[in-house]
Amino acid sequence: MSTSIKPVCAIVGAGEGLGASLARVFAADGCDVALLSRTAAGSAEAQTAARQANPSGRTLYVEADASKAESLEAGLKSVASQLGAVDILIYNVRGSVSFKPPLESSCDELREILDVEVVGAFAATRAVLPAMLERGSGTILYSSATAALRGSANGLLYATAKFGLRGMAQSVAKAYAAKGVHVAHLRLDCDLDVPIVRQMRGASFKKENTAQTDDVAQTYLWVHKQPRSAWSNEVELRPYTETWTI
Amino acid sequence: MSTSIKPVCAIVGAGEGLGASLARVFAADGCDVALLSRTAAGSAEAQTAARQANPSGRTLYVEADASKAESLEAGLKSVASQLGAVDILIYNVRGSVSFKPPLESSCDELREILDVEVVGAFAATRAVLPAMLERGSGTILYSSATAALRGSANGLLYATAKFGLRGMAQSVAKAYAAKGVHVAHLRLDCDLDVPIVRQMRGASFKKENTAQTDDVAQTYLWVHKQPRSAWSNEVELRPYTETWTI
Amino acid sequence: MSTSIKPVCAIVGAGEGLGASLARVFAADGCDVALLSRTAAGSAEAQTAARQANPSGRTLYVEADASKAESLEAGLKSVASQLGAVDILIYNVRGSVSFKPPLESSCDELREILDVEVVGAFAATRAVLPAMLERGSGTILYSSATAALRGSANGLLYATAKFGLRGMAQSVAKAYAAKGVHVAHLRLDCDLDVPIVRQMRGASFKKENTAQTDDVAQTYLWVHKQPRSAWSNEVELRPYTETWTI
Amino acid sequence: MSTSIKPVCAIVGAGEGLGASLARVFAADGCDVALLSRTAAGSAEAQTAARQANPSGRTLYVEADASKAESLEAGLKSVASQLGAVDILIYNVRGSVSFKPPLESSCDELREILDVEVVGAFAATRAVLPAMLERGSGTILYSSATAALRGSANGLLYATAKFGLRGMAQSVAKAYAAKGVHVAHLRLDCDLDVPIVRQMRGASFKKENTAQTDDVAQTYLWVHKQPRSAWSNEVELRPYTETWTI
Repeated sequence: MSTSIKPVCAIVGAGEGLGASLARVFAADGCDVALLSRTAAGSAEAQTAARQANPSGRTLYVEADASKAESLEAGLKSVASQLGAVDILIYNVRGSVSFKPPLESSCDELREILDVEVVGAFAATRAVLPAMLERGSGTILYSSATAALRGSANGLLYATAKFGLRGMAQSVAKAYAAKGVHVAHLRLDCDLDVPIVRQMRGASFKKENTAQTDDVAQTYLWVHKQPRSAWSNEVELRPYTETWTI
Repeated sequence: MSTSIKPVCAIVGAGEGLGASLARVFAADGCDVALLSRTAAGSAEAQTAARQANPSGRTLYVEADASKAESLEAGLKSVASQLGAVDILIYNVRGSVSFKPPLESSCDELREILDVEVVGAFAATRAVLPAMLERGSGTILYSSATAALRGSANGLLYATAKFGLRGMAQSVAKAYAAKGVHVAHLRLDCDLDVPIVRQMRGASFKKENTAQTDDVAQTYLWVHKQPRSAWSNEVELRPYTETWTI
Repeated sequence: MSTSIKPVCAIVGAGEGLGASLARVFAADGCDVALLSRTAAGSAEAQTAARQANPSGRTLYVEADASKAESLEAGLKSVASQLGAVDILIYNVRGSVSFKPPLESSCDELREILDVEVVGAFAATRAVLPAMLERGSGTILYSSATAALRGSANGLLYATAKFGLRGMAQSVAKAYAAKGVHVAHLRLDCDLDVPIVRQMRGASFKKENTAQTDDVAQTYLWVHKQPRSAWSNEVELRPYTETWTI
Repeated sequence: MSTSIKPVCAIVGAGEGLGASLARVFAADGCDVALLSRTAAGSAEAQTAARQANPSGRTLYVEADASKAESLEAGLKSVASQLGAVDILIYNVRGSVSFKPPLESSCDELREILDVEVVGAFAATRAVLPAMLERGSGTILYSSATAALRGSANGLLYATAKFGLRGMAQSVAKAYAAKGVHVAHLRLDCDLDVPIVRQMRGASFKKENTAQTDDVAQTYLWVHKQPRSAWSNEVELRPYTETWTI
């Protein structure tokens, strides 16, 4: 009979790739880890990663659909009831993004991506904030992308959503930082080394030109650990090979 | 019996204040002006302004609800059938914004403001773009605000929406500028001298600290008139008294 | 015997290209125009442009070396004594920029470009400001470039200078806007159609991909004319063909 | 008889406050630490901090005047000859900043701050880069401030310099990241808890409203340690109490 005093880290969008790396890194650091996604199969890799990284820690899968605010709220409530209040929320959902000219995108598609990327992030945030405010601490990390700073000819859907997410992240930070909640927007300004990118790039894929998800996850952990007198709100990451534009 | 060859300017969100000034300024410059809003009463001032500014021009009121993509599409279709293809679209809708802490805002409120500020802008854009692309010219102007660059403790709803609008404006510009469509995001980084601001500010209201809407509308007209070898995409405006932060 | 009440426009860096267009456009609008550059030959085209655009206006050439603060101060003092206090200052100097890797650039080169692009702009600003503040109006326009927002592998010298210029422009604006001085930073985010660019680009030069300097100058004039309740501080310009990054 | 294989960290501007914290944190992490400043007395605190944090490590004081490129170059050459090639350069110089209206600042003052904040940073960078490029790794960290993103009415001197520094940092990063050199611009968007701030703020000083320099230094160390597939170039820091504007 024992009471866990481990921090609880809830990862929404815990699939393969970055989701699994986040599970691994936060578990290895001693967190109990909850994985939320639409299917248990989708989070299987992340769950295994967390278990191997911290065999004595608890891992939990909870079904949740990021396109439905109610589903996220219920999922995070379930996490809290099973593991305790969430200390760290990572919103790492990536909707099915398709890049195409604005006129080939519909209003429904725009609404769908806003639901998943923006309203979902807000719903998850709302679900964990009250307990964080009550105890005066907590961390909320949003996974974002280049598109949060820059529109593009074929990226209207994605840019509109990621811009919105960035504005939301700033607002939540400004509202609750002084109450001890650390909010950050992590802008992955690059390709990640994940199956979908390997597939998209095909023969032109080069590992050196991508961010390794375990490396990315280390900075998420660092942001969580920053002492509160010196917090970052916007953090960008890219591989050393990237010739980026700001 | 004559055929108008005047440019057609459609203003979505053509109420009192900036809407009426835009109607006045574009009418005075020789445009036929279509005003779209939820009620004819709401656009009465704008319609009068347009008529007085250009008695020989045509003005048209069309009912449209910016929170419903289909309504905007139908409204703009009606404009085109009555006045001819839209040359200038001004999306000037302002939802009912309430400033409050994130936790006092609901997911439904976020969805509502995204529908009006972002999805509505996209619906209107989609409705006028094909004809613009066909003839290789057109202007699309989005009214925006400080909140497009900066979140705030009580402004999550508004910031999320205006950030999204900015990302959309960049994307539409990058997709279609080379085809002759000039897209701009006009950031009003200040209070406007409009009834609602006078009411909000009460005794502390000072005319000198606000932008006059006729003055603001002049820059909208200028952006429309910029020769295509030297276009602006993001334009900020504020009164000389404003001590702003970028 | 008559007293001129025409506005006085002083253009520092009034060579061929944009300098000549600015001279033409502000003269055509009714200004007396003073041209400052290192040699009369360098400003000959600008002077001719101003005279042709406004045969009844006054044009004046004054020798000044933008790399020497004292020379700029003396030159602008000379303008004021001959034409009257300067109403509009345009700082349009472009040092001899060479693009190369940081390690191939020297500290002396960095100091030189900072002297011309930044300290010179400040010296010219200081020279005209007191009279502007005394009468409560004036316009100061700084020509800038993409490099003001973005460093680049071969553009350290230019980016360091243009970033600095942008910070200066914001500071001057914030210090003196409320006293009636309109300050703007005009970011030319593109190639201009000027001899040096035609030469650099060689066979790949395409007029459609460049900003025409007369078109650019029209926006400088517009910024000057903006009513003071609705001023812009940062203005970007690029041709419709440009696929830019923000 | 032994050969040190410890990384060499050179801190330019190693006074009390952040300089001493950087010395402490990098020494504690196992670096040999070189402290460069105008007087040995100025670096005494930093030197003591480094020694206490890592009694078995080497610490070295080298006289250097950041306002003179040659002095910095000589100083860093001396470091390399005594400790070995520099692995980590931290440019943490802060000139004597005085906040006042633009017209009360002189061109000489602008040149002076540009020399210290910008040309000095470039001189130091040039001094350490060749060895970093030769071995394909290295870290260069520039201490910066809010003023790098935003001009202010009384901060022209500081903003012009810090904007310039930011443009330089981007350029160096883009030129040499792919060769293994990690360059970052650390924006301290807040007051630090250092003697000069305590003095400036007087009775209104509140420790909770400032960043603790040891906490800030931890993020410098983290940026240095980021794996190269996921590097940050611009990092902002502020205390949880800060109500900032971006």
